Formats: sequence, C-alpha cells, structure tokens
Amino acid sequence: MGNSICRCKGKDGSLVLITSAPPLAASKGEGKTSCALALLDALRMVGVNACAVLRQPSLGISAAGAKGGASGSGKARLKEAEKADFGLNGEMLRVGAYQNLLVSLAEKFIGQNGKILLPRSISVPTRYLRNVGAGGFAEKFVLTPASEVEQIRTLSLSREELFSSIKGITVGKKNGRFVTAKSLPLASSWPILFPSCRISLLRTVRNSPVFMYCGPFANVSLGIPGLKAVKMALEKYELVLVEAGYGFDMGMQKYLEAAGRRGAPKPVAAIVVTRKESLEKMRWRHVQAMKCIKGLGLTAIPLLNIFNGEWDSWAKGSIALNPVEDGREKLQKTASALMRILQAAKNSCGIKYKWNLRLVPKMRYVCLSFYGVPPSRVIFSKGFKKSYLSACSQAKLEGLSLSDFSLNVVKSPSSLTDDDHKKFSKRSVTVRGVSLNTGSRLINVRATLSLTTSLPKIA
Amino acid sequence: MGNSICRCKGKDGSLVLITSAPPLAASKGEGKTSCALALLDALRMVGVNACAVLRQPSLGISAAGAKGGASGSGKARLKEAEKADFGLNGEMLRVGAYQNLLVSLAEKFIGQNGKILLPRSISVPTRYLRNVGAGGFAEKFVLTPASEVEQIRTLSLSREELFSSIKGITVGKKNGRFVTAKSLPLASSWPILFPSCRISLLRTVRNSPVFMYCGPFANVSLGIPGLKAVKMALEKYELVLVEAGYGFDMGMQKYLEAAGRRGAPKPVAAIVVTRKESLEKMRWRHVQAMKCIKGLGLTAIPLLNIFNGEWDSWAKGSIALNPVEDGREKLQKTASALMRILQAAKNSCGIKYKWNLRLVPKMRYVCLSFYGVPPSRVIFSKGFKKSYLSACSQAKLEGLSLSDFSLNVVKSPSSLTDDDHKKFSKRSVTVRGVSLNTGSRLINVRATLSLTTSLPKIA
Repeated sequence: MGNSICRCKGKDGSLVLITSAPPLAASKGEGKTSCALALLDALRMVGVNACAVLRQPSLGISAAGAKGGASGSGKARLKEAEKADFGLNGEMLRVGAYQNLLVSLAEKFIGQNGKILLPRSISVPTRYLRNVGAGGFAEKFVLTPASEVEQIRTLSLSREELFSSIKGITVGKKNGRFVTAKSLPLASSWPILFPSCRISLLRTVRNSPVFMYCGPFANVSLGIPGLKAVKMALEKYELVLVEAGYGFDMGMQKYLEAAGRRGAPKPVAAIVVTRKESLEKMRWRHVQAMKCIKGLGLTAIPLLNIFNGEWDSWAKGSIALNPVEDGREKLQKTASALMRILQAAKNSCGIKYKWNLRLVPKMRYVCLSFYGVPPSRVIFSKGFKKSYLSACSQAKLEGLSLSDFSLNVVKSPSSLTDDDHKKFSKRSVTVRGVSLNTGSRLINVRATLSLTTSLPKIA
Repeated sequence: MGNSICRCKGKDGSLVLITSAPPLAASKGEGKTSCALALLDALRMVGVNACAVLRQPSLGISAAGAKGGASGSGKARLKEAEKADFGLNGEMLRVGAYQNLLVSLAEKFIGQNGKILLPRSISVPTRYLRNVGAGGFAEKFVLTPASEVEQIRTLSLSREELFSSIKGITVGKKNGRFVTAKSLPLASSWPILFPSCRISLLRTVRNSPVFMYCGPFANVSLGIPGLKAVKMALEKYELVLVEAGYGFDMGMQKYLEAAGRRGAPKPVAAIVVTRKESLEKMRWRHVQAMKCIKGLGLTAIPLLNIFNGEWDSWAKGSIALNPVEDGREKLQKTASALMRILQAAKNSCGIKYKWNLRLVPKMRYVCLSFYGVPPSRVIFSKGFKKSYLSACSQAKLEGLSLSDFSLNVVKSPSSLTDDDHKKFSKRSVTVRGVSLNTGSRLINVRATLSLTTSLPKIA
C-alpha cells in the first residue's frame, strides 16, 4: 500500500530473484528458502503486496533423508511443509510417468534395430540404474526432476507450448534417422500430464502466499520455478520473490538464459543470501556473486542469514535476518531497509545478459561473468569438440538451428570452477561435453563430472 | 427405501460381487464396470441405498492406448472418467515411488555383496525393463499395480496394518540372510505413502456414488478394490456392488481367499456378467462360473450384457441390460428383478470357501472348484517342487508360518486352464513355481506363463 516500487517492464509486478553464492555442500544450502519466506512475511507486514515463487522439492531426495525439505524452518516456513516436501499433488510423479511412457512408446516404434536416446525417469535416487542393459536395449535413467519432460513443464507458458515442445523431444534413432515424439501415438496420453500443469498455492505459517511449481536440480537441469507460475504471480502481486538456486551461477544464470530468451519477465534485483560460515570459508564467491549481478545491470542485495547465537558482530551494516527466530519488529525493520534499496533500484534497472552468442563465446562469457574465470583459462576438452560437432550434425538432421537453444550448464552445484580452493590465477573451467534436448531446446554443456542421480544418504 | 435385503453379517450392508467368466481377451472385458454402474443407477432408481466399489485402472495401460478405460460407457459411466483412467490424485504413482524407494534404500543397506529381491516398479508398460543389469545388481521391474506395496495398500484396513506389512517386505539378502524393510531407515519416507491411502469418491453421470481404491491386475496381483473402501462402503450403504475381475477365477477367488482370511466382509451373491460372443464361443466357462459360485454357497446371478442391436432373442428369461443405452424404465425393471433374487438370497447365505488348506491341497481345491479341473489333471512341475521347498525354507528363516499366507494364483486372465479350447477330459492345469511376498503375506503360485508387464499396444 503506497510502497510502489521499480517495475522493469509493463504493468506487472517487480521480480526479485533470491539466490546465493554456491553453498559449501549441495546438501546444506545457504537458507534461501527460509530467508525468502521470512522476507516475504516481512514485506507483507509493512504493506507490500508480495508473494514468493518456489521450486518444488524433489520428493525422492526428501524421502531418502538425504536433504532437509525445501519448505523453510522455524517461524519462516510453509504451513503445508510435508505436502510440499513429499510431492504436492503428485505432479512430478506424473512427469516421470510421462517421460517413461515416451520411452515405452519409442521402444515399440523404433524396435530392436534402433536406439533409444531418451532416458527413463525414476523419482527416487539410485546410482545403480544410471545405465542398464534391458532386453537388448541400452537404457539410462535420470531422476525425474532432471527429465526433459520436467524441463519442458518448467519452461512452458501454455498448454500449446507444452505439447509442441514434447513433440520435439528426440526419443531415439531408427534406420540412422533421429525420431522425435511427434512420430509416437500420443493422443491417448495427454491426460497423464494435464494435472501436472497445476500451480500450487501454499501459505507460510504467517499466511503469506507462496506459489510452488516445477523445477529443482539446477546442477543438471534448470533449478528455477516454472515460468508460468512466475508470470501468474507477477500479474497478481506487486513484488514477487523468485527462488533461483543452488547459487547465482546455476538457477539465476539459467533463469536469465532460458527465461529471458522466451520473453519471460526479467528481474530488477537479486538478493544474495549468505551464511557466516560461507563468508569465512569462501568469501571470494560471495564477492563474485555481487560483482556478477551488478555487471548484469541488476541491483545486488546481500542478505545475511544469521544463525542462532551469531547475531550482530559480523552482520553490521548489512541487511540481516534470522529467519528461524525473528519476530514482527525485526522483520519490519528488515523489510523497510530492503524496500529503500528496491525503490532506488528503479532507475538503474536494465538487464545486460548476452543472449545471442554462439556456444563457445557464450560459455566463455558465462565463465567470465559468472564464475570469474577469464577466457584464457576456459579449457575446451577434446570430448567437447567431438560432441559439439555431433550436436551440430544432429541439429542439422532434425532441421533445427542451435541459435534457438538455451545454454544449460551441467556442473557441480557447490563449485564455480574446476577447483574453487585454488587462488584466482589458477582457477580454470574445463568444458567437457555437449548434448541436445530438442524438446526443451536446451544445449547441455558439462562443465564438471557431476552426477545426475545420487545414491540416497541414509540419515 | 423399504427394500431391506439379505445381510450376511452384522449390522452392515450387503456385499454383492460383480464378476464374469474369463473374458475372451484380457484387453476386451465382458463389460463388468459398465454393467456395475448401470445396475447401481438402476438400484438407486428403485430406492435402494446402493453404491459401487471399483478398482482403480492402471494409468499406464490407459495412456499406452492398450485398453479402454475402466470407467464405464454410454449412459453408465463415471462423470470423472478421465480422472479415474489417468491416475485419480496420483495415488498409485506414489505407491510406485515408494516401492522404488525401498529398493534404493535396500541397495545402500545390502551393498554390492548382497542381492536385491524386491523388484522396482514402473507405471507404464514395457517389456524391456523386465530384467535389467544395473551397476552390478541384477534388478527387475514390475508394473506398479503388481508391486507388493500396492498389494499391501489393497489389503490393509488401517495405517498401522499398512506400516507393519511394509516392514515385513523382503527386500533382499545380505550375508546369506533375508533382509526385510524393517532394517531400512523408513522414518522419513512415510509421507510419500500417506496420501495414497485416500479413497476416491466419484459419481456416475446419473449421480450414484462410486468408491475407487487400489487394485487392478488380477492376473499377477489381486484384482480387487482396496478392502478399506469395501468396509467403508458397507458401513454407509445398504447394498454394495464390488467389482472383482477379470473373471470369477481371479478377482473373486482372490477376494474370498485374501479378504476372507483377514476377516473382511463376505459377499452374499455374485453377479456374472456375460456377453453374447463369450457365451457362443466359450459357454462352458460361464456354466463353470455359475456352478463354482453356487458351490461356494453364494447366490449366482447371470447378467447378460446386451450390445446395441442384439436385443431380446438370446436374452430371454435372464436378467439383461444394455448399459450403454438403457433408460430409466428398463433399468427399473432390471433392478426390481435383481432385488427379488437378492431378497431370496437372504436365507441361503453361508459361504463355504476353504481357507485352511495347505498349499498343494489348496491349489487342487481351487483348480477343481474354480477351473473345473479334477486333482488328477493338476500337474505340479519340477520347478514347482523346487521353488516350494525354497519358499518353505525362506519362511522358516524369516520366522514366518506359511499358514498365514494367502494363495495368489498368477495366471492368464483369459484362460481357466492350460488350454480352455480342449474338451473337458483333456483340460489340465500346470502349476509351475512359487514365491513369497512376505509383506503382503501372499504366496504366489504361477499357473501359466503369463507376463507381469506387457509392451504397450499402440492404438
């Protein structure tokens, strides 16, 4: 009420990304979700008509006890935490079933003399199914959040876009030709997928609105909430906090790259959540995050996530928050400070991300801007060159132009470079391999040997 | 109202099974669901407070276009047909995810030197994944409706029973000892499964109440609706129609065997749905169904499923129904005729199924009573003997008594014997192998080489 703030484009609300530097470990985040929910509650306390848009957690990871839920903690958490952590209304399970259906239909269509290229999907972690020999076919499995159908669900703004993208998925090869899902009898299959396109509206315990839709697994996939939910939120709310993780190098970079290319709303600012331990151990990454965000023409706002017992000594002069404990008064102060910065952001808004580079210059650009590694230390391996040529040839055979593809860097979520512990002048990025997702129009570039599924860690 | 009818036990409503002889092909049923829904509408039109309890269709089979939905047709169908055919609220997808979680946790617990015995689960058909070599483990896949978790969901009357049965699942072997799910860290996993225990209340287009819960795949699994839904329906309604298919030899036999053993409500009658084509081609099987049901002490009611254009000439003297077309007047006549029979059934009610036989005599009993094959032509193969001894040894090692297990015959759904086209004196049943599901307490006996999953047939 009266807190009208910067709006980057058109009549809709303002989008602020919630991100961080890479967490010290993938299983131990910086507390982006808790901070996002605390900020959301705080903003609404001072009269800002705000909401948050979160990614849906992977239920398989939650169930295996490998990671806490992604539903906040303490006073800053979702009312329906269990529902959020364990699959909402089964949307992502439908995505997995649909991806598997595509593979089954492809097996039938392609027959034993062809090759299946689309991996199957499983909703719980396991290392053993990564590659299987199955009745004459070599098959692969990925965790459902990393499936191409989930990528398409994340990026699609309409049902038409969803369908047409799915038809573009390359499912295999037959007689030397690539086969896309368009060749499969999909007519009776859409009702599996329909219900997965519903956006969940949840509430914090303080009753603030939170949309949850699609998209975990920034390391191998997108790591951003579904664009449809972001768009819807911006149509209804003045200020929208969108979680993009693990770090700015993953979810934020991917949001800008893939969403920006599709004309999705652009952020005016990014909040960089950080913990004391991360600052102490890896300060340069926080500095790099701030520098990167500013370089992109966005307002960069550091937000210190204070743990119990840490208060004050290290947080002076910054916006700080203890999401687990902070009450009304403290939150209102934080919200007011944040709003002052966001109001000032109004004039400086104008995003400078370079969408239209070809793959190699794009990778060099991302390495420099996001990871802080200059072109001279970006190493393109032999495997990269070979697989890039093969991707070019695939695109040509399928009548596609690589300039329509968004870059999807596949790398460790807890590292910007080959070894973040080296000093600046020794830090490099090795670029290893390329593959195409022709449905989601992503060109995947492996920058580390991170795994696509992991064995559950037993709690 | 005022149509008080036979109640076999206690204060609850009367249970009538809807079954048939085996269909001519598994993909082309006799129309049990359509007839059940037409009868339900009819009964309610004449004032009987009736409901139906159906099995949930396998969404994977529907999506692959291999089978029409199981939601009725024409005037006798569910309002929410698409929802029913394509997974309701994702309950069975959760079951599949949970079964896979058990396997993943077992892999971790057992390690590479042990053996995984529980198959993984997939929700869409495929032949290729039946046996896979996966990262050093030999793994198997079954279609989710055939998973042990689904069997447990079907048979459990309470959450406590569900949990304790799941803990009893044998997941593998380690150092020569059987490992059950009790050894796995399941604490964080229950919320995956909780929401799958909700019973769906649907409506016919004429607004009659239909419960849908669990249980397709009578050939390899149970083929009966979840017992919790049957029990709930009987607490609320005077007359409850329960679908048990494919034929009386499968779903009905399994209902009596497994449900009866657990003290679940017993039927007073069974309606045998049949089509003209089936009567013409395989009359003896319809006769066998009627004889079997009477032999069990139940009232057997033949119901002719009239297809458009077939009316009258062959249906004289029987209760007949064209579920697709029949309007109010015809349905009311059918309902009244049915009610007269059910009222008469009151006094003759008293079920005679033999629960307490050991495995070999039990199989002989089922072959004689249900399949019409005398003991002299029930052939126990060498494989049977070997696997039976191995099952006995497993039970002993796990401290279980086989007398607590229910028989689960795994066989073709469209055949009572090894070859139904032979004449009576040549018909045999070959019993091939035995395995134990220690969680659902089923002893599976293979009586034919029917497959547990099938490649989708493209429509």
